Amino acid sequence: MGTSTSTPGLPPPELRGDQRVAPGLVRYELLHVDATTGARRGRLHTPHGTIETPVFMPVGTVGSVKACAPDDLERLGAQIILGNTYHLMLRPTEALIGAMGGLHRFISWNRPMLTDSGGFQVFSLGPTRKITEEGVAFASHLDGKKHLLTPERSIEIQEVLGADVIMAFDECPPADSARPYFEASLARTTRWLERCVKAWNRQRSSLFGIVQGGLHPDLRKAHAEAICAIDLPGYALGGFSVGEAPPAMHEGVAFSAPLLPKDKPRYLMGVGTPLDLVNCVGSGIDMFDCVLPTRTARNALLYTSQGKVVIKNARYARDEGPLDPACSCYTCRNFSRAYLRHLFVAEELVALRLNTIHNLHHWLTLMQRVREAIEADRFAALQKEVRDLWRTPEKEDA
Amino acid sequence: MGTSTSTPGLPPPELRGDQRVAPGLVRYELLHVDATTGARRGRLHTPHGTIETPVFMPVGTVGSVKACAPDDLERLGAQIILGNTYHLMLRPTEALIGAMGGLHRFISWNRPMLTDSGGFQVFSLGPTRKITEEGVAFASHLDGKKHLLTPERSIEIQEVLGADVIMAFDECPPADSARPYFEASLARTTRWLERCVKAWNRQRSSLFGIVQGGLHPDLRKAHAEAICAIDLPGYALGGFSVGEAPPAMHEGVAFSAPLLPKDKPRYLMGVGTPLDLVNCVGSGIDMFDCVLPTRTARNALLYTSQGKVVIKNARYARDEGPLDPACSCYTCRNFSRAYLRHLFVAEELVALRLNTIHNLHHWLTLMQRVREAIEADRFAALQKEVRDLWRTPEKEDA
Repeated sequence: MGTSTSTPGLPPPELRGDQRVAPGLVRYELLHVDATTGARRGRLHTPHGTIETPVFMPVGTVGSVKACAPDDLERLGAQIILGNTYHLMLRPTEALIGAMGGLHRFISWNRPMLTDSGGFQVFSLGPTRKITEEGVAFASHLDGKKHLLTPERSIEIQEVLGADVIMAFDECPPADSARPYFEASLARTTRWLERCVKAWNRQRSSLFGIVQGGLHPDLRKAHAEAICAIDLPGYALGGFSVGEAPPAMHEGVAFSAPLLPKDKPRYLMGVGTPLDLVNCVGSGIDMFDCVLPTRTARNALLYTSQGKVVIKNARYARDEGPLDPACSCYTCRNFSRAYLRHLFVAEELVALRLNTIHNLHHWLTLMQRVREAIEADRFAALQKEVRDLWRTPEKEDA
Repeated sequence: MGTSTSTPGLPPPELRGDQRVAPGLVRYELLHVDATTGARRGRLHTPHGTIETPVFMPVGTVGSVKACAPDDLERLGAQIILGNTYHLMLRPTEALIGAMGGLHRFISWNRPMLTDSGGFQVFSLGPTRKITEEGVAFASHLDGKKHLLTPERSIEIQEVLGADVIMAFDECPPADSARPYFEASLARTTRWLERCVKAWNRQRSSLFGIVQGGLHPDLRKAHAEAICAIDLPGYALGGFSVGEAPPAMHEGVAFSAPLLPKDKPRYLMGVGTPLDLVNCVGSGIDMFDCVLPTRTARNALLYTSQGKVVIKNARYARDEGPLDPACSCYTCRNFSRAYLRHLFVAEELVALRLNTIHNLHHWLTLMQRVREAIEADRFAALQKEVRDLWRTPEKEDA
């Protein structure tokens, strides 16, 4: 720590994972397409090792996956985690992380990483941000300080952070935007991508383009054509899971995913629930990220093989059974629902870690099962099983 | 979990630790006394395994050692942890813990445990509590509900919790109490011990008596004689580290420890800093507990081989070095001071766990070194080394 002189953003060579590619571009390898759905089994080779896809990526917003240190994540089998450009540029700043050798070394995570562009988060700031052709001006939520995020600046920050995959700076227009606004926004996002590509150093990280278009099939199609006309190591779908009903989202993804190149990884940003994952894997998505498992865990909402468990509920006060009898995570192997309920109610810090470990395990083992099911051409059966469990309305814990 | 029908308070036989004694009384084995100090190397055989002494016991107030789950504690080599009767009787209540099979099973800790009597904490409640010959009436800090804690009730609660070692219900009079108050209090504590002994089921847990007397040598001597006249598996010194200057405390312990039987474990309650530990081990103390390592960790105050580090300080913002270069804990092996500072400042939950792991490791490895030094008849040298590091005023991190 702090003694090696290797390239910033990369761990010392002896700490790197399975190295199938030299530092630089990631490479997608399509292994198999499920016999009866669009589900794809593949591999993403990155400078920090190979990712088995489809994959779920836990979110490490400010330089840690909340409540879980790298030891927990490694034991959980997390293959890749996310960092958020918006949060990290403000604190501790990308300059500091760069000086510390890049994000991998700073947070002591030697497996692959992906950073977002900051776009989604600055747009979420509401009235304090202003969009122009140049970029987005906004005020920090921490100290009110003014910042300007542009395609060039986003790429610069992300390259200093040094993740394996970096994302294009785009606008995610509100789903209910008027059609003229959508059209103008999509055209600007395409111009922004061209600027990202110009700013991008291909030797360091792999830039993914982002297709927007909300729930409008014709806009999605036109934007996918524009974005995918630029040859990039991967492509993402943005603007889903931003408030629309899950069936509309699944339908939109089902229409949009096949618009992306078959020989590149397809990343659905900010998604989602277990039901979302199996539906969208079936449409050909390879990569997912979402704060849902970690955020709900910190609010006592736990996902199990029997539905949702709101562990703070009084009904669990004397429940000697494990949270999920079918789960093999550290939490379920060692603790009763009664104890987990006590820890949460008593506001013991350990509750947040144990809950987070369980939910992440639920998401990550689901994806493991997804991969195995695709390999065996029985993904449709798994999809049905998960749909039956989480059928709308989702199993609530009244 | 939840399926065995074994005795409440004991884990199923297959989960128990090194069993040198049958369920029931603990047994102290004195292995060696240091050549030039009073430091004792021994073993405490308990129903949940053998404890190498001198030992430091992390405090698990409300059923968890704050920020550390059992997996962390096991990796840290914690031999025994504490539970607090006052907190547990209020939430989740001893009745619930008893129904769940006792504290060991409830919290999934299969190594030895000790519970305090609740006395110290109810006395700390201030004006809401009232002391009579019968016991102490108090109002819960959680909901204001009235409770009465008596010697009999304290033993009853502790036996339901089922720790290996339980403590007598005593009064810890304020150190500045008038002498007549002290004398009356000590006499009452002796009567309370007699009531505890009558209530105590010797087949389940081992009751330790507590000697009070503040900083008055004659009162300590007289009370030690009264308490130790009752044959018990162990004895404790209470009423130290309650606000007096460390040198006065060390002097008081040096006077008081030899008043306790040589063939029984000697437990100094609520102590203390690394300096306190080596001073009091030198006076013949075998067991310690204190919230200091865990509480300070959650406030960014970390203890290292080079003195105190207030990790939130700006001076560490770009410090690439480990928190303590001489430390082998998970935190020091994997993270820089810069990252730990960032996590704390950004209020990331992981900061609290990483800090707590480090401080507990500091305390527990110090005790490991203490034990090795006693075995080798070089405890005085270790004592000098620790005194030199923490000489008053303690090394501050300005």
